[in-house]
Amino acid sequence: MSANDHKKNEHNMDGMPKDGNRAPVTIIGLGMMGSALARAFLKEGHPTTVWNRAAGKAGTLAAMGAAVAGTAAEAVAASPLVVICVLDYEVMNEILASAGGILSGRVLVNLTNGTPAQARNAAAWAARQGAEYLDGGIMAVPQMIGAPGALVLYSGSPSSFTMYQQSLESLGASHYVGEDPGLASLYDLALLSAMFGMFGGFFQAVAMVRAEMIPASVFTPLVIPWLSAMMNAFPRMAQAVDTGEHGTDVSSLNINKSSFVNLIEASRDLGLSADLMTPLQALVNRGVAEGYGADGLSRLVELIRRPIST
Amino acid sequence: MSANDHKKNEHNMDGMPKDGNRAPVTIIGLGMMGSALARAFLKEGHPTTVWNRAAGKAGTLAAMGAAVAGTAAEAVAASPLVVICVLDYEVMNEILASAGGILSGRVLVNLTNGTPAQARNAAAWAARQGAEYLDGGIMAVPQMIGAPGALVLYSGSPSSFTMYQQSLESLGASHYVGEDPGLASLYDLALLSAMFGMFGGFFQAVAMVRAEMIPASVFTPLVIPWLSAMMNAFPRMAQAVDTGEHGTDVSSLNINKSSFVNLIEASRDLGLSADLMTPLQALVNRGVAEGYGADGLSRLVELIRRPIST
Ligand SMILES: NC(=O)c1ccc[n+]([C@@H]2O[C@H](COP(=O)([O-])OP(=O)(O)OC[C@H]3O[C@@H](n4cnc5c(N)ncnc54)[C@H](OP(=O)(O)O)[C@@H]3O)[C@@H](O)[C@H]2O)c1
Ligand SMILES: NC(=O)c1ccc[n+]([C@@H]2O[C@H](COP(=O)([O-])OP(=O)(O)OC[C@H]3O[C@@H](n4cnc5c(N)ncnc54)[C@H](OP(=O)(O)O)[C@@H]3O)[C@@H](O)[C@H]2O)c1
Repeated sequence: MSANDHKKNEHNMDGMPKDGNRAPVTIIGLGMMGSALARAFLKEGHPTTVWNRAAGKAGTLAAMGAAVAGTAAEAVAASPLVVICVLDYEVMNEILASAGGILSGRVLVNLTNGTPAQARNAAAWAARQGAEYLDGGIMAVPQMIGAPGALVLYSGSPSSFTMYQQSLESLGASHYVGEDPGLASLYDLALLSAMFGMFGGFFQAVAMVRAEMIPASVFTPLVIPWLSAMMNAFPRMAQAVDTGEHGTDVSSLNINKSSFVNLIEASRDLGLSADLMTPLQALVNRGVAEGYGADGLSRLVELIRRPIST
Repeated sequence: MSANDHKKNEHNMDGMPKDGNRAPVTIIGLGMMGSALARAFLKEGHPTTVWNRAAGKAGTLAAMGAAVAGTAAEAVAASPLVVICVLDYEVMNEILASAGGILSGRVLVNLTNGTPAQARNAAAWAARQGAEYLDGGIMAVPQMIGAPGALVLYSGSPSSFTMYQQSLESLGASHYVGEDPGLASLYDLALLSAMFGMFGGFFQAVAMVRAEMIPASVFTPLVIPWLSAMMNAFPRMAQAVDTGEHGTDVSSLNINKSSFVNLIEASRDLGLSADLMTPLQALVNRGVAEGYGADGLSRLVELIRRPIST
């Protein structure tokens, strides 16, 4: 169907509540994530218009009832709520440049990953086009979108969030973190840092056991409950960071310094790089050298403020 | 009480089953972890002898019914099951040197963190003393010892494990990983690598939000469900690693390369070091450069085999 057809789509329009719960929505970018977003809106009965640079990716969505716009500008024109999710801000800026004026009076929800500074710039640009701006951080993989467990963080225009929260809940739980448009991305990148740390540790662990011919799938059932148990330390560590009281009856920097020597030596004995582990080791060693050997690991947070390698 | 008294201790000896469930046990090393081990054995009614370099640490345990040995050799002589948990192997070797011959006919369980190579050397040394050797990796913090959730991995003498498994379960669930004495430590160090990765990511995340005046304790309730959800990817990633099939419909190295640029730029904008994050970024970039941009993150495991920085 074309971008102008969906008003006639009985299925999509049937039962659309007045509160905008099933507001018409446009999705720009149909990569793995953008496609999942479009599917979730369609599933909830939103009149949905889509556009993607490579036109082929719209096919399945059209079969599900999406209107396929011929240009990005036409896609923006189709809905009061415009969601964009592409590779990065450079791509987003390039795509939206062709649709600047048309954005006037609409709400732009940007779910493309970027920095707080980029989000603030995008909000200022949107304001110059007469558009409202919400920035979002998707804390989910595509398979989780529209399913329990998916979380999307939002920041920026409070009135737009209020107006479209119900629509946006089609994607997953929504959590508004503040009016500063950079905040969603700050939280997003912080959560991604935590995830990448966890993945990096998991990859090192898997490489180690596999070097001794233990399959990753034999090891994984041990690592999941272990990390879940160790995560129980987060609230206590957070409190230590907030209060600056890092004394411990759990495990000291001194003890962890010894464990680091062992795990790095073992990685190298196995013919593996230890580069994923050495920066945290350097931080532990610096903590000990600065006299914090009896403190817990939470002490390390404040050391991240300076270059680790010095 | 002295090391020779505990046979008279009615409380400890009452109901001691023939299977060695409440066998007399010696604990050498009363740091945070060694003290927790001794408390757990006492709680389960084991006649328990303790020794620590700094004598002061034995006081509370003596009040709980432990026999306090005057020397390490005397401690070893007191029990058929000798558990040692000190700073590192160097300290362990130094302590046990004074008790070599006395170990003959006993089972030495070493719960000191070390490398697989160190464990294998210790097993060979113990064999020369006529002792059986079990190496263990404690996957718990001291507060978890003897409580649900604690796991201790063992490797080495299979008959010793069979003989003392019930006794060792006083500390937590026991999991025997093989006859090669180095295996418990391999698993232990792999699990510690995973933990340190996760902690490093959490510390970076906390440093980021705090740089924008968001308390760690406000952020932490978001990070725990997020990492728990992302851990659901481990079994799928493990399978990808084991089969070598890294194609993805979740999230590609290309997309993660862009996210890394953002999170490192954001960290630096906030005045933070990004050194905890740059090695995984380097690995992602190398994966993309080698033509794996469309693959999932699991592809990175095989790249750990070579130095990351080249
Ligand atoms: N996948 C995840 O698990 C996940 C999770 C949370 C957040 N995100 C974020 O969601 C965003 C999209 O990720 P994704 O996984 O959907 O990536 P993807 O599958 O690689 O899709 C990338 C999208 O960007 C478009 N694009 C790239 N370069 C372009 C250009 N020069 N001009 C026009 N369009 C261009 C692609 O269009 P073509 O089809 O024409 O190439 C496609 O629509 C990213 O910011 C990512 O960080 C993803
Ligand atoms: N704490 C944890 O969360 C945890 C978790 C899993 C595994 N572990 C492992 O358990 C072991 C002990 O850790 P911990 O937390 O109990 O450490 P700790 O509280 O620092 O205790 C260290 C122990 O080593 C002894 N020691 C150190 N240097 C010595 C020396 N030169 N001569 C004789 N004794 C010496 C100490 O005796 P003094 O009292 O005389 O100094 C003390 O008994 C380590 O291998 C650690 O990796 C700990």
